[in-house]
Amino acid sequence: MTELLFNKKLQVQVKCKDCDDRRANIRISIELQFTTNPIHKRDLVVRLTDDSDLFFLYNLVISEEDFQSLKIQQGLLIDFTSFPQKFIDLLNQCISEQEKDNPRFLLQLSSPSPALDHSPSNLNIVETNAFKHLTHLSLKLLPGSDVEIKKYLAACLSALKEEKQLLEQKLKKTEEDLTRQLSYAQQ
Amino acid sequence: MTELLFNKKLQVQVKCKDCDDRRANIRISIELQFTTNPIHKRDLVVRLTDDSDLFFLYNLVISEEDFQSLKIQQGLLIDFTSFPQKFIDLLNQCISEQEKDNPRFLLQLSSPSPALDHSPSNLNIVETNAFKHLTHLSLKLLPGSDVEIKKYLAACLSALKEEKQLLEQKLKKTEEDLTRQLSYAQQ
Repeated sequence: MTELLFNKKLQVQVKCKDCDDRRANIRISIELQFTTNPIHKRDLVVRLTDDSDLFFLYNLVISEEDFQSLKIQQGLLIDFTSFPQKFIDLLNQCISEQEKDNPRFLLQLSSPSPALDHSPSNLNIVETNAFKHLTHLSLKLLPGSDVEIKKYLAACLSALKEEKQLLEQKLKKTEEDLTRQLSYAQQ
Repeated sequence: MTELLFNKKLQVQVKCKDCDDRRANIRISIELQFTTNPIHKRDLVVRLTDDSDLFFLYNLVISEEDFQSLKIQQGLLIDFTSFPQKFIDLLNQCISEQEKDNPRFLLQLSSPSPALDHSPSNLNIVETNAFKHLTHLSLKLLPGSDVEIKKYLAACLSALKEEKQLLEQKLKKTEEDLTRQLSYAQQ
């Protein structure tokens, strides 16, 4: 079972090695995945995609155990249950600032290689105050494999097919309704 | 540059090793691909997909040189230029017979392994007469790799996005047109 917690397009500052920083519009989705078999398990799945580049996919799956390491490593004071909402609050803070010339909160995608190619990249939420850059959160995301991208595209395609079908039904119904009303009004 | 010559859903008899034969609805598309760089080149691309299984993909690319081997191997009497139309004629013959209990022309997809998994399979066009089964054409298709399936799905997704956009525009226009006509008729 999957619970979608967040799915928005955000402005991200892309930083690569030896490159000028650039801005990109990246879609971030956050999902909670529940597994009951063989054991009860909750995973937080963070996914970065680009609506204009269908092959762009970065993933991070955080299990409850992973979260304990992340918590220690980044000095977090919250538990796994509260983490998603706190993460979403920070992302919303970035959104509310993203049109400003000097945003206080900024989302960064930082790659150690010359381009966003096939190396792990860090998604950072950075606050800039008068004194320094403060990294509130830094998550290491892995680029999607061909199999993962394939599955992601198939899921998009299924969803889009359904949306298109609903739209076709709506068009048909709208035409019928309005044509009926029109012929009634013209009588 | 690509020229789409054929794109239809056909009933195919699927034959696997140690399995009962079954019928499946498979989409067959035939394209001519032209390349001019570095050399002028024409390839015939045959693609099998399944609208209900997004990961199903079989491919065959026949270059003019490949065709020479195919011609000798299968005793064909036509050249590369006439081959696509002859192939399409045979497929249409299969379509015209596919609702019959004992179709004279039958399309077979035959795999040497227990299921249509990741092994090359043969697409056969078989005529059954009172005397015997006659194979008019047998093409060896390769299952799509993850990269090929990924690319195929991305192309489907782009096309579907466009169709959905056109549908949204049409819905908007239909609503506007009919609402205008309605308010005019009601005056």
